[in-house]
Amino acid sequence: MVNDKLLHPESIAVIGASNNTMKPGGKLVKNLVDHPFRGKLYVVNPKSKEIQGIPAFSTVEDLPSVDLAILAIPAPFCLHAVEVLVAQKNTKAVIIISAGFGETSEEGKKLEQQIAQVANRFGACLIGPNCIGVMTPHHASVFTTPIPPLVPGGCDFISGSGATAVFIMESGIPKGIRFANVFSVGNSAQTGVEDVLAYLDETYKPGVSSRVKLLYIENIDNPDKLLFHASSLVRKGCKIAAIKAGSSSAGSRAASSHTGALTSSDAAVEALFRKAGIVRCYGREELTTVAGVFMCKELKGKNLAIITHAGGPGVMLTDALEDGGLHIPQIPDSPAKQSLKEKLFEGSSVENPIDFLATGTAEQLGDIVDACENDFDVDGMAVIFGSPGLFPIRDVYELLNEKMKSCRKPVYPILPSIINVKEDVSYFLSHGNVNFPDEVLLGRALTKVIHTPAPATSGSFMEGIDLKAIRAIIEQAKEGYQPPGIIHQLFDAAGIPRVKEIVVTSETEAVLSSLNIGFPVVMKVVGPVHKTDVGGVILNIRNVAQVRKEFHHLKEIKGAEGVMVAQMASGTELFLGAKYEQDFGHVVLCGLGGIYVEVLKDVASGLAPLSLEEAGSMLRQLKSYKILKGYRKQEGVNIPQFAEIIVRLSNLLRHATEIKEIDINPLLGNETEILAVDARVRVGKSSNEYS
Amino acid sequence: MVNDKLLHPESIAVIGASNNTMKPGGKLVKNLVDHPFRGKLYVVNPKSKEIQGIPAFSTVEDLPSVDLAILAIPAPFCLHAVEVLVAQKNTKAVIIISAGFGETSEEGKKLEQQIAQVANRFGACLIGPNCIGVMTPHHASVFTTPIPPLVPGGCDFISGSGATAVFIMESGIPKGIRFANVFSVGNSAQTGVEDVLAYLDETYKPGVSSRVKLLYIENIDNPDKLLFHASSLVRKGCKIAAIKAGSSSAGSRAASSHTGALTSSDAAVEALFRKAGIVRCYGREELTTVAGVFMCKELKGKNLAIITHAGGPGVMLTDALEDGGLHIPQIPDSPAKQSLKEKLFEGSSVENPIDFLATGTAEQLGDIVDACENDFDVDGMAVIFGSPGLFPIRDVYELLNEKMKSCRKPVYPILPSIINVKEDVSYFLSHGNVNFPDEVLLGRALTKVIHTPAPATSGSFMEGIDLKAIRAIIEQAKEGYQPPGIIHQLFDAAGIPRVKEIVVTSETEAVLSSLNIGFPVVMKVVGPVHKTDVGGVILNIRNVAQVRKEFHHLKEIKGAEGVMVAQMASGTELFLGAKYEQDFGHVVLCGLGGIYVEVLKDVASGLAPLSLEEAGSMLRQLKSYKILKGYRKQEGVNIPQFAEIIVRLSNLLRHATEIKEIDINPLLGNETEILAVDARVRVGKSSNEYS
Repeated sequence: MVNDKLLHPESIAVIGASNNTMKPGGKLVKNLVDHPFRGKLYVVNPKSKEIQGIPAFSTVEDLPSVDLAILAIPAPFCLHAVEVLVAQKNTKAVIIISAGFGETSEEGKKLEQQIAQVANRFGACLIGPNCIGVMTPHHASVFTTPIPPLVPGGCDFISGSGATAVFIMESGIPKGIRFANVFSVGNSAQTGVEDVLAYLDETYKPGVSSRVKLLYIENIDNPDKLLFHASSLVRKGCKIAAIKAGSSSAGSRAASSHTGALTSSDAAVEALFRKAGIVRCYGREELTTVAGVFMCKELKGKNLAIITHAGGPGVMLTDALEDGGLHIPQIPDSPAKQSLKEKLFEGSSVENPIDFLATGTAEQLGDIVDACENDFDVDGMAVIFGSPGLFPIRDVYELLNEKMKSCRKPVYPILPSIINVKEDVSYFLSHGNVNFPDEVLLGRALTKVIHTPAPATSGSFMEGIDLKAIRAIIEQAKEGYQPPGIIHQLFDAAGIPRVKEIVVTSETEAVLSSLNIGFPVVMKVVGPVHKTDVGGVILNIRNVAQVRKEFHHLKEIKGAEGVMVAQMASGTELFLGAKYEQDFGHVVLCGLGGIYVEVLKDVASGLAPLSLEEAGSMLRQLKSYKILKGYRKQEGVNIPQFAEIIVRLSNLLRHATEIKEIDINPLLGNETEILAVDARVRVGKSSNEYS
Repeated sequence: MVNDKLLHPESIAVIGASNNTMKPGGKLVKNLVDHPFRGKLYVVNPKSKEIQGIPAFSTVEDLPSVDLAILAIPAPFCLHAVEVLVAQKNTKAVIIISAGFGETSEEGKKLEQQIAQVANRFGACLIGPNCIGVMTPHHASVFTTPIPPLVPGGCDFISGSGATAVFIMESGIPKGIRFANVFSVGNSAQTGVEDVLAYLDETYKPGVSSRVKLLYIENIDNPDKLLFHASSLVRKGCKIAAIKAGSSSAGSRAASSHTGALTSSDAAVEALFRKAGIVRCYGREELTTVAGVFMCKELKGKNLAIITHAGGPGVMLTDALEDGGLHIPQIPDSPAKQSLKEKLFEGSSVENPIDFLATGTAEQLGDIVDACENDFDVDGMAVIFGSPGLFPIRDVYELLNEKMKSCRKPVYPILPSIINVKEDVSYFLSHGNVNFPDEVLLGRALTKVIHTPAPATSGSFMEGIDLKAIRAIIEQAKEGYQPPGIIHQLFDAAGIPRVKEIVVTSETEAVLSSLNIGFPVVMKVVGPVHKTDVGGVILNIRNVAQVRKEFHHLKEIKGAEGVMVAQMASGTELFLGAKYEQDFGHVVLCGLGGIYVEVLKDVASGLAPLSLEEAGSMLRQLKSYKILKGYRKQEGVNIPQFAEIIVRLSNLLRHATEIKEIDINPLLGNETEILAVDARVRVGKSSNEYS
């Protein structure tokens, strides 16, 4: 639980403060002093009267009342200190930076749990242990550097790893990324990444709180909480980018060996992020580049102007953006274009990229930006301006700084000359701007942002789903793979259309069933396992005479217990399945069946429950979507019905979490209807059922 | 033409030298002075007696004999100066940095051509005009900064754009990338990127010349030359990475508007790079990261150890590498592993990643690297070591520097704390090492390098190709789309198997033909264009009686000129085609037919002529390769025969460049044989035939 005392304390005490700034307890005090905290700062050290010029208390007991305490003392002493603080000093927020807890041993794990219990009992927030601390615009309570610029409009950043948080800031600072609140949650004894995000959501004030949230996550403990608050923040207008490390199986092993945490399946993470509207990143450079995009004004369309004084980077950026589905539209002829052209040097190009040559001036850049802002049909601009090192280009960056502020459209600055005009770039960043030193990395980040869907809307409810029946079937179902009868009942209760199948034992029943189902039908022997091997499947039966004949034929097969008469379905083979992931719930996968799933791995995933909109978006994501729609002479499938079946399945699963795996394979579909032909359903009821 | 006087001049003259170092002619002299050139340096300026402390000549005529001249005078004066230099001063190398030539006007174009003619006449090398110049370990003849470290073991770098060259160096220098020879070819009036590469190939001395070549190309003027010399260099042990800007159509437009050059089709570039063994990059950051990989020892397998003192980056790197097909194998138990574990702090992990904790020491790092070098079954190591900013970590980087030198296996250093331990990182780089500040960008670069194939071997010759016949057929062929007869002759001459087809006009002929071909056969009406619409195609004819009957039926169709009896082929639909690209030659495309080509775009490309090895590699590249091999119950196709047909086609095309487009669609294949069923061939003979 995060609270306001953590973010806006009026007093801070550092327990284990030191004069040695090469030690965490020393560096922490130095950071608090160097990045002034305006409240009262207390320090506790049993041996020194004074720490870095601040009079020291000998023990925690000696302290006056204090809002926030930061512990940099050995693990075994922490429990007592926290007890004293929360019980006697009215301390409502505690950060434990000390290591030696759950990350090293079982006893350490127990110790941190005890501390969390104490904090919980007194309604105090506990951050850590084993973390680098917390930074806000009010206080820099971390033992590490660098301390980035801390301003209310910067990024909120929550990290599951302290060292990685440092490295991410090292990557962001040179790009001008500024921060608001930085949380390193360490072992998350009480407060995890999701909890901090929940607090940021619950206390979100439009126009006051930071619009940008960055997350580094090694393990998602509470996917529902993350989904709920991330979606809520994005709906409020926030932008969220996150790294979830451990996407490969070897990466998961690495994450596990490091944090001792179980790592969640990557498909579930992928589905969760899409559903929440989180931009998924895979590295630090990518995360801080996306953060830079977020710090700029919002891009509200896909058309960009590229303004450059050098050809090469303009071409490479064009390639990256077009490759990612954005457009660099040619600027059509107009008086505005003509008038701009006249303001530029001969040889300049007012196509797109707009190239105003190596000799281009600040004034010309201003004219171009104004034309893009007011006259040209583009949604944003990327401005590339470096220097061969002959002279300073301060005037250009002054102009660009002004335009960054005054334009309604986003302007993405690409200032590649981080050596030649280092000072000019620093000047530009010091005015609160970001820089993208590499245009292609910017292009890929922009692409990633533009392709992240909005958070899913709710509304997965669908008529004709009999929840009571579903629960009754599931409660009576045995563990393991389910027989066809149970599967039929489940599908019927959820309104999932399936081929009609009737098991019969007499010739008359067979004939009546076939008439009921309608020709052509399939007849199968019931009893033998490998039906086709014993000639027990007869396709395409077209009349009553054939039914009579085949009934007798099938009944004579060894082990025959009966005969099944089934509807003969045909059409394109589809795939729909789901897997229950511990904590995440059901990850639903869909696609075209056969080789599309098995060889080409062309599958879309979503996290149940799914809305019709989400199901539609999953289908559109498929590479084979064109085939679903009907390609050339090949008939397509009823896509709205496929989406509806996906939603129905996700409704069924939502109320039957005992279903651990389900494969509907195949569904057969054509333009009029889609029918489930065969399915495998595994039910697991024990609590230690593997997921 | 490049020559030794350009790289190792004993005297250099700067024409248009200036005291104003904010002007190109001033900065150029300053660079030559600051990065000492040991030969004689002359300056020419009509107005000053002395330029930056160097006595000045008033005119070019006054100069003594000089090896290399650099012109920074207005374009109109350049021709005369070059004439004097090459004719009277024995100048064998000229760099023109002045702009105002072909990039601005037609007259400028003529002027630079005239200058090139003069240079050619006297056997002099001409670089530029409109370039930043040339740098070698002997002289820094550029008017820009930064001047990177110039050492014989650095990268050779050839750039088609001066500004982009500057920006690429700005990106590379912070990573420790060092350079040997840097060439900015500008308008390439005489010497283009390919020509410089040819020189580097022809003068390559193993152990002396740089092993690494970087290229930035906006337009490939001479693909054959690039292919020949790039392949040759790679075969000699070099590594080449290149950006070809303008891969998207909008990017090409941008490139064209900038350079006025025709941009080559991207599929042809892709095919050329693969054939040459060039690592293709798409941005500056990517190019300099790949350059960093090249500067390390060669990775000879796919197994890497990740050594880290922080979990997060280790996990992200693992994800990136596994995602790209490299392996981070678990370290199996062994005495060496046990012994290493005992040397590390408690809580360290000797799985892989090997995590030696935030408190890990230089000594421990040394032990881990030694174990990876000597005991563990890995091919290389990535070492991640940053700092939270408490104390310097010079000892760790000293150790790492030693290990970089002594290990036989490559060590990739990831030092993320470029702010916290800036000085320590600089120290590390100053010893000739590179740094990869972002582990994921390194992971992707390594992946890219490891997946670039070796240059294609020659040996595309194939038995049974009748070159004389091919030439005779092509010479007699009319322009445009070819009739079936011509296509059959071409295929037969090239040994490309096709379905048997015989056109007949009598019932007897039809019967004999069907017996000759073998049942089942297909019969088609000859004459009408839309055969199926008029019922003019009869499939699956199984006996003589049917042949007789259908012959009469088909003959009665309006417009029937005859009847074709053809072999009835069946099997998997394959695709094979080629397109002639101006300058590049034929780009051959192959894949599975139908939706695989048309919807899923699963196509591999190669540049003719192709060897069997290349054709095989193209097929293995396909996502649908598993389907070609036969998937589940579905029969595969004869892959060696498919590869052979690809080679035969490429042989045919090599000797018939008049074929501008060919589509064999479909080929039908099964496990025993593949047959061309239908083909479209377009011949273009006029020299201005669009490509």
